[in-house]
Amino acid sequence: MKNYHLSPSQFREEGKKIIDWIADYYEHIEKYPVLSQVKPGEIKNKLPENPPQKGESFDAMMRDLDEIIMPGITHWQSPNFYAYFPSNTSFPSILGDLVSSGLGVQGMIWATSPAATELETRVLDWLAEMMDMPEKFKSNSTGGGVIQDTASTSALTAVIAARERATKFESNKTGVRQKLVAYVSSQTHSSLEKAIKMAGIGSENLRVIDVDEQFAMQPELLEKQIQKDRTEGFQPFFVCATIGTTSSNAIDPVRQIGEICQKENCWMHVDAAMAGTAMLCPEFRHFKDGVELADSYCFNPHKWMFTNFDCDVFWVANRNELIHTFSILPEYLKNKATESGAVFDYRDWHVQLGRRFRSLKLWFVIRHYGIEGLQFHIRKHVEMAQNFAGWVKESNDFELVLDPPLNLVCFRHKSNDEFNMKLMNAVNETGKAFFTHTKLNGQVVLRMSIGQTHTEEKHVKDTWDLIQNSAISLEKA
Amino acid sequence: MKNYHLSPSQFREEGKKIIDWIADYYEHIEKYPVLSQVKPGEIKNKLPENPPQKGESFDAMMRDLDEIIMPGITHWQSPNFYAYFPSNTSFPSILGDLVSSGLGVQGMIWATSPAATELETRVLDWLAEMMDMPEKFKSNSTGGGVIQDTASTSALTAVIAARERATKFESNKTGVRQKLVAYVSSQTHSSLEKAIKMAGIGSENLRVIDVDEQFAMQPELLEKQIQKDRTEGFQPFFVCATIGTTSSNAIDPVRQIGEICQKENCWMHVDAAMAGTAMLCPEFRHFKDGVELADSYCFNPHKWMFTNFDCDVFWVANRNELIHTFSILPEYLKNKATESGAVFDYRDWHVQLGRRFRSLKLWFVIRHYGIEGLQFHIRKHVEMAQNFAGWVKESNDFELVLDPPLNLVCFRHKSNDEFNMKLMNAVNETGKAFFTHTKLNGQVVLRMSIGQTHTEEKHVKDTWDLIQNSAISLEKA
Repeated sequence: MKNYHLSPSQFREEGKKIIDWIADYYEHIEKYPVLSQVKPGEIKNKLPENPPQKGESFDAMMRDLDEIIMPGITHWQSPNFYAYFPSNTSFPSILGDLVSSGLGVQGMIWATSPAATELETRVLDWLAEMMDMPEKFKSNSTGGGVIQDTASTSALTAVIAARERATKFESNKTGVRQKLVAYVSSQTHSSLEKAIKMAGIGSENLRVIDVDEQFAMQPELLEKQIQKDRTEGFQPFFVCATIGTTSSNAIDPVRQIGEICQKENCWMHVDAAMAGTAMLCPEFRHFKDGVELADSYCFNPHKWMFTNFDCDVFWVANRNELIHTFSILPEYLKNKATESGAVFDYRDWHVQLGRRFRSLKLWFVIRHYGIEGLQFHIRKHVEMAQNFAGWVKESNDFELVLDPPLNLVCFRHKSNDEFNMKLMNAVNETGKAFFTHTKLNGQVVLRMSIGQTHTEEKHVKDTWDLIQNSAISLEKA
Repeated sequence: MKNYHLSPSQFREEGKKIIDWIADYYEHIEKYPVLSQVKPGEIKNKLPENPPQKGESFDAMMRDLDEIIMPGITHWQSPNFYAYFPSNTSFPSILGDLVSSGLGVQGMIWATSPAATELETRVLDWLAEMMDMPEKFKSNSTGGGVIQDTASTSALTAVIAARERATKFESNKTGVRQKLVAYVSSQTHSSLEKAIKMAGIGSENLRVIDVDEQFAMQPELLEKQIQKDRTEGFQPFFVCATIGTTSSNAIDPVRQIGEICQKENCWMHVDAAMAGTAMLCPEFRHFKDGVELADSYCFNPHKWMFTNFDCDVFWVANRNELIHTFSILPEYLKNKATESGAVFDYRDWHVQLGRRFRSLKLWFVIRHYGIEGLQFHIRKHVEMAQNFAGWVKESNDFELVLDPPLNLVCFRHKSNDEFNMKLMNAVNETGKAFFTHTKLNGQVVLRMSIGQTHTEEKHVKDTWDLIQNSAISLEKA
């Protein structure tokens, strides 16, 4: 009798074709324009307006994937992708995630798949060790780690837990009635402002502290603002320090900020979404000096650690505060293991209830590369960025906006903003490379973010040549 | 030179082995105990305490997967999984998700992969049509759909958007200063209470409305409570109606609640997380009568529509309210397409910034099964549940707690609560089936949730026999 399912043997056949399709994709990824060149509506208009009444063949689906979808892909995994931040993945990660999809388990509480919880705990303890994180972030101490989807969600989680701690867990009951104020720098990621809004604090109660010439938060201004707020009857409760800002990879002085937070009884959240991966290498760990003062810390293996989206690691110093903030236990989720208190139920560590078995891909990545392999690639990316910065310095037409601490180079053509934007668009329209801009001190700045899995020296060199040649052509035009 | 990566040819080899591993898993899934029988810490203690310095082989990883991880898996995809709610997946979904992992694109804004945005828009318009949803939920009208990770996040999104609309978008700026109150029933999912807390409203400002004998919200009590709150100076702003509650699959009277919301200027969110999939079949659509009055609506293809986690569909009637609530545009994300206003940037439709290409798996599922195939399976699940309910009715020792509207059967042994809990644990400890309990009217109730992809009549029959026989053994003991 027809049951409409794909049979296991058909799955073997179609699945292996897709494995080959992915391998082919990576072997030929450079033939695609990095930035998709389609116009708004172009993809949607090629897709049928109505859903199919009857099932279709895998061949038809794969053909449409090639013909309709692929032209609308911006190739984040291309070695010539230098835009935004890296969002690199790797074959071991893809396969770990495939196992997770295949098992299809829900790890919302320990009992619903003990391995999903316990592998996650173990792997995040491994990472804490691999990055020389404070002992208190480990599961055998007061804290622990949990995988969140994104750094935005980690920011929201941190803000809400901080809000609860500051109000003695009252605002969960009464709503936000206190005059709470939070602090970021002008370079902090926009997700922090979003979190402050979502959590009912309000953007008017977010203080934006000025940065120094390296775009790092000025701790003395933070201190001053906190005093001013206290005088005016506000309750300072939360500060976000960033290791590697999005615009320019600026490193906030974590220790100084942390000391202020300790004194002022504020929660310090450290956002190391991209740059956090660098902590795998001892030579970059000075950037996290003072992190033992943090109440929470996050970084994204789905940015720079060869692990596919989504995978954000969120550590807290005191898991009880987190659990007290987010725990809700309806009857239908009660079970012996939870009642024994001997297990973690990760649903109490974040916004969502349901959760995918995400630690599998992280486990595959760490085991495949080993600490050694991961360090090798991080060092290579940083080295390529430093080389690029050197070429910019030597050039007559371009200038470095600041010395890159890691793998993000901020530079500009010495002419005006308009020319820089034109230059960027011209390069991106060739399809040979894709990079993006930001503004620093009101000026347009070009960003080369070097961190894709397969980026080699020759790609970076070719892109630098392309940028230079495009500038020359534009000057002539 | 050693680069530590898995080469494309190694990926082909290891990937195909994993495809076979997954096919083998489904072919032999019934040999595993459905509920993992491990003790707390058992898995973690088998995993090395320290991370590997050097990379390891895929063979070693797959061996540990079999030997260490698999005993700690609770097999959600087993045909004998009847616990909680279904979280079913299917081979087409696994493969669609594999393509997504392979491409590794970030669909945070249109420009970062136009196909990721436009396929999502198209597929959610298809679903609106497939389920006869109001026109206003479609992208060519005032609303639109977006994929969220979970119904919990959709609830939070709806609460915050409602909060902003009610305060004329002031609370995003000032924080929650208004005396807002929200309404749920005593059977509403716990994620709504969690959302009310997270959004800074406070659980004291959540009114819990009593239910009728079918566990559905009583609209006249809602109306009365709203009047009382207005008299006391509160501002009613949000009501959640549920189509298919978690405990018992109760159906709130959406039309009556919607009419009250219209009159009282409250946002109505409809949570159809599990039962929503039934709307694929015209004969079940009476359960959503009145849905055209909803401001937002969600259901989870990752529950009952053969699509692996995470995939929650969230529709709104007015996308501008949503976007106005969640939009933040930093310089580094500015681009021509966004500025033109001709595209959707889905990052403005939810909490997170980053987003995976999740519509691919949904596209694969809908195209593989067609409307016809999906309807076939939903009808079969409902029919099996109705048969099970019939057997319970005919039995001398068990009773039906209520007539199941769809695929969830609430029943109990006629003896006391303690016996029912013992019976459930005894059955679950055999490993042959896994089901869970809830409490209704203060009484323990057993739940048979029938909706896994490969559950057939014989599985349900065997489980019923097992439950009956276990009860007889327990009575004798």
